[in-house]
Formats: sequence, structure tokens, C-alpha cells
Amino acid sequence: MSNVSSSVVPLTWNDKNGELVWLDNSQIPWKEVNISSKNLDRLIKAIQSLEIRGAPILGEAGAYGTAMIANNSPDSKDAILKNVTEHGARLAAARPTAVNLSWGVKKIQDVIKEEIGKGASPKEIKAAAISEAKKVQDDNIAATQKIGRHGKHLIQDGDVLVTVCNAGTLACDGLGTSTAPMRAAWADGIRFKVLTTYTAPLYQGARLTAWELHKDGIPVQVITDNMAAHLMREEHATAVWAGADRILGNGSKESGSVYNKIGTFGLSLIARELAVKMYVAAPTSTIDPIHAIADVKIEQRKPEEVQTLLGGTTIVPKGVGVINPAFDMTPPKLVSAIITELGVAVAPYDVSLPKLLSNADSMVKPAQKSGNNKL
Amino acid sequence: MSNVSSSVVPLTWNDKNGELVWLDNSQIPWKEVNISSKNLDRLIKAIQSLEIRGAPILGEAGAYGTAMIANNSPDSKDAILKNVTEHGARLAAARPTAVNLSWGVKKIQDVIKEEIGKGASPKEIKAAAISEAKKVQDDNIAATQKIGRHGKHLIQDGDVLVTVCNAGTLACDGLGTSTAPMRAAWADGIRFKVLTTYTAPLYQGARLTAWELHKDGIPVQVITDNMAAHLMREEHATAVWAGADRILGNGSKESGSVYNKIGTFGLSLIARELAVKMYVAAPTSTIDPIHAIADVKIEQRKPEEVQTLLGGTTIVPKGVGVINPAFDMTPPKLVSAIITELGVAVAPYDVSLPKLLSNADSMVKPAQKSGNNKL
Repeated sequence: MSNVSSSVVPLTWNDKNGELVWLDNSQIPWKEVNISSKNLDRLIKAIQSLEIRGAPILGEAGAYGTAMIANNSPDSKDAILKNVTEHGARLAAARPTAVNLSWGVKKIQDVIKEEIGKGASPKEIKAAAISEAKKVQDDNIAATQKIGRHGKHLIQDGDVLVTVCNAGTLACDGLGTSTAPMRAAWADGIRFKVLTTYTAPLYQGARLTAWELHKDGIPVQVITDNMAAHLMREEHATAVWAGADRILGNGSKESGSVYNKIGTFGLSLIARELAVKMYVAAPTSTIDPIHAIADVKIEQRKPEEVQTLLGGTTIVPKGVGVINPAFDMTPPKLVSAIITELGVAVAPYDVSLPKLLSNADSMVKPAQKSGNNKL
Repeated sequence: MSNVSSSVVPLTWNDKNGELVWLDNSQIPWKEVNISSKNLDRLIKAIQSLEIRGAPILGEAGAYGTAMIANNSPDSKDAILKNVTEHGARLAAARPTAVNLSWGVKKIQDVIKEEIGKGASPKEIKAAAISEAKKVQDDNIAATQKIGRHGKHLIQDGDVLVTVCNAGTLACDGLGTSTAPMRAAWADGIRFKVLTTYTAPLYQGARLTAWELHKDGIPVQVITDNMAAHLMREEHATAVWAGADRILGNGSKESGSVYNKIGTFGLSLIARELAVKMYVAAPTSTIDPIHAIADVKIEQRKPEEVQTLLGGTTIVPKGVGVINPAFDMTPPKLVSAIITELGVAVAPYDVSLPKLLSNADSMVKPAQKSGNNKL
């Protein structure tokens, strides 16, 4: 089966000069700027300033960044080990709540230790680190291709699909996650349109999802968050497609609870009332087989993001407080299906998700392994 | 019963110099600027640039503006009649879809014709015009006081109330409409808090409602539109309070359909699923006893409002379309109660609203009289 493609290239490793190249997300949609560097501090700055963002891409950045640390080191096993340990820790801490980032760093640290243990030469160690980072990226991309193949059958001619935030190629590489079934269906000749919601306060739906779908020729319109209900009714929307930051899959009745960008829960309530499907697309690495709702803390971000619109206009009156949760939780009863690289799970999720995970033992599961339960 | 007050004074007539004074809404919350003028072109500019906005206030502006035209005229019946006819038409056309504005103009034109018919002197005609404009304002304010009295019993200690857009004093004079029960309950010592939603793309919830409630000491927090569902669940919201631009009340099963600012329908769906009350507060002049859903066209506003955030940052990629409906319709089954100056109507609205209207024959009903069915 030939692969579908996205025209967006968010991250690449340049073998010729040992530099990492990334598309600066913070300048999208205004400018399409690729930044190339072998400097670790520059990479850390890129992660902190959201030039590179999105859980799966941060996993790749952690892996490539650590391989770059090794590659920049003198040809000495001790120097390589010292550098990937010390500087790797700095890289992993660039966004402390980003589980995938530290997972990517550790993955390459482990490979380097393994190579040293096997008596590999410094050159062989460096090559193995780079090769393993490429494998992390290849696996990510392959998973999005499979999500596309499994999910495309849920999209039909004439559909009107609603999305939230960006779970596209910019965040996930490959075909993205929520956008993978769209790209795969479009490549099969299925014709539909997408309404992407603003996703205040950072407007990733308007800025990023609209940009990458438009770039790939998929019809997309931007709507403000408060238009979703009206336009889902008036435009006869057929499905909401969301990504996920964490999906509970511990086998309890909470299985299938979906943590995703703030606004997803509201769309799911609207979808329920309007008899619109609610689909969640994510790799199985997103499924958390351990934690319960009571364990998950939702990140509260700084008030300035809500007080001041992107670009600098303060709309909240002086002295008035705001709330700024980054994620919300959609209960399983509102989720029509969860589309992963291993297949499509439907209710009851307390049965279907553990079953899916039992087929995924060789898969990467950063969320569950880190024990980090802060979104 | 003593009246509750709002500390916001949106519009006043200055008897000493014959000038109209208004609080420039377009500068809220950044600056509190009162503008005073007897110049009609300046008033028209104020209406067009949203210095003065909100259906009931526009009714007052139409009435006072027409009285001002008369007052500025030479002491001649012919000159007065000619001016209020010609310049009144210009004023009424300042915002063609604003029914209340042209209603206010016509109200004063009619009084002037009546006075001329009765043989009044030019001075008496001018005085009658100003007096009638004041009565329009007084009636408006009195209606909001009554909405407050009827609605305050629906608010209890510890409540968390959600609002959308601005149906406050800035838009409606007096206590506002959706804010009237809040102000009245607060004055009775009931303690609660309000979450006001952004209301993209013009952010009237963040800018205006937060500003005026904070000014009156009522605890208010601003949330983005996509946070409503999550925070209504997490903060245990008890009710949504919305205003209305039009409420169908023709006696059919469509009675109780509420047209209001975009986002209201979504909040009502969320409220239904979370067992939160959905209250609509509006004067009976908002109830349309003639038109049906099929008759009402929802205003589509210019794309620039969605493409570019207030203050100038364009977030929608070049080449990507947007949709910009200004209003939505909430079906009667999602409306818990409609609070008017004549009392509280509950389902079935095909019975309760016509009954309410039959008690309101002496009331002003611009929406139904104009035949204008464009929101």
C-alpha cells in the first residue's frame, strides 16, 4: 500500500553537517522559516519558545537533540557519556511537563550506554545514536500512516468535519493524528470540508491546522470557538475529529476518558446533542493503562495568555481575574471511536482499550512509563 | 420598593446645553471616555463605530438624536418638521439592521407631528420631543429594574453563573438585561460569582461585561469561549444567563426560540448535558409575535473580524476562508425560563409567551412593528 504524504516537513536531521532542521511553528502562518542548528542551547530555546511543539515531535526533538550532543562530542566514550548525561538532562528539562521530550532523551542515552557496554568505538556510538533517533521519527511517521489507513473509512463524500487545536503534521510529523484520516481519505478521492475552530487563547486551530490543510489542498474554513454549535447544525457537520494528550485505558469504567486541548469536551457535548460523531485519533502511546481521573492534574497556564490577545491587545479589564486550563476531559460515553495505529476501538472502552494495548507491548508508551501525570 | 443601581451611565441628555452625552463603548475597558455633542454627524459616527451599541441603547439614541435635531432647528414648525424628517432618516440609516434605532427616530417624529397637529408652538414642540425621548429612556430603565426583580429569585448564594457577550448596562441602560437579576440579587446580599465568556470575534464578554460587573463589585472571571464546558463542570456552574436579540412568540411550537449572540446555542447544549439552567433575560419588546424561524435571516458579518484579532494580528492563513455569523438560535426545549419585565415565562412557550404579550399591549415592540426580520 503506497503511503499518503503531507507537504509539511516539521523536523529533519541533516547527515551532511550534523544539524537538526525544524520548521519554526511560532511563525506559522506568517512566515515559513526553517531553522538549522547543531547548537543545543538554540534547540532548547526553540522548544521553550514553541518553535517546536506537539507531543510526538518533542519526542523526536529529544532523541535527535541527544544524538546531536553525542555527535558534537570529542571522539571519546567518556566525553560522549558525560555530555549526553549532563546536557541531555538540560534538554529534557526544557519543558518539564512534556513527557515525550524526556522520553526521547532517555531513549538515546540508553542506546549510547548499550553501545558502550558492547565495546563500540566512539564513531560507532555516534552513528548508533543518530540511527536510533531516526528510528524514533520513522516509527512516529509510520504510526500516523496507520492511523490514516484505519480512520479514513470513517470519512465519506460530502462530510463536514470539525477540528480543534492542531494535531496535525506540525505537532505529530507524518500525516498528523486527527488529520491523518483526512489526508488518507482525500488521497483516495473522498471529498469533504473541514471547519477548524480558533482554539483560544493560542489559536492553533486557526494558525496551524488551517495552514497545513490548506497547504495540502484540503478545503478548510476557520470559525471562532463559539460558532461551533451553530455551524455544526447549519452546515450539517458529520463528525468532530480531535487528537489526544492522554487517554485513560486502565480497564476501569474511566477507560476511554480523553484528555485533549481545552474545548474538546464542549465539542463532544455539542456533537452528542446534534447526533454528530466524536472521533479521537492518537497513537497507542497516548493510552495510559495506569492512572485514573483522580490522578490527572490539568495544567493551568499563565493568565497573560487569556488577558492579552496574541499580538498584544489586552481585552480583560484591569483587576478582573481569568482562568486558563490547557486541557479538558471528555468522558467515554461521548466518544464514538478512538482511532490508533493498531486499529479502531469503540465502547465499551474498559474492554477495547486494554485489548488494544495487549497488542502494543512492543510499542513506545511514554505517558505510562514516565509516571508523569501532569498534562 | 427601592431601585437597585448600576454605576455605569451609558447615555444622558444635558438639558443645560442641549447635548447628548455617551460613554464610548469602543474604548472600554481601556479608557472611560464620555463624549458630549449636539452634532448629528458626530452621533451618526458614534453609532457606526460602535461607540454606542446594543439594541435598547440604540432606541434611546434614535429618540434623543431626533429630539436633538428638533432642538437644533430654528423656532419654526416647518423647519423642525423638515429637519426631523430629512436628518431623522439619515440617523435611522446609521445602522440599517438596528431595528430599535429607527424605532426611536420614528417615535419622536410621530410626537412632533402630533404636537404640530395640536397647534403647539415651536418651543413646545421641542420640549415635547425631549420629554418623549426621556420617557423612552425611563421606560427602558424601568423595564430592566423589573427584569431584575423577577429574575433575582433565580439566583442563590454560592451560584456560579455563566454569561455571553454583553447584555449589560452598556447595551441596555439601567441594570442591563442578563445582568439585571445579578445586580438585584447582589443588592439583596446574595453572593455568587460570574464567568463571562470571551465572545469572539469582538470579545464583548471579556471587554464589556467583565468591566461593568467588576465596576459594581460583582466577582467576575473571564474565560475563553472554548473553556465553557470544562469550567461549567469543574466550577459547578448553576446557570447560564443570556440576553436576546429576538425571541419567537408567534404561538407556534417555535415559540421560545431565542436569537442571541453567537455562542449562546452552544452554551445551552452544554448546560443541558450538565444539568445547568439556561436563563434568557429580555424585555417583552424582544418577543416577536409574527415571524417564524424560516423568516429570520442571521446577519453574516465581514470576514476581517474573524481573520484578524482585535488590535491587528491576523491569525487566519492567507487563502483560507472563514464564516462569521453574528447570532445563533437556541431552541425552546433548551431554555429553562425567559425573564421579562412582565414576569417569568416557562415552557410551553407557545402558551406562555402569547399570554405574556397580551399583558404587554401598551408596551413598545419595535421588532414586531418594523417587519424587519434581519438580525
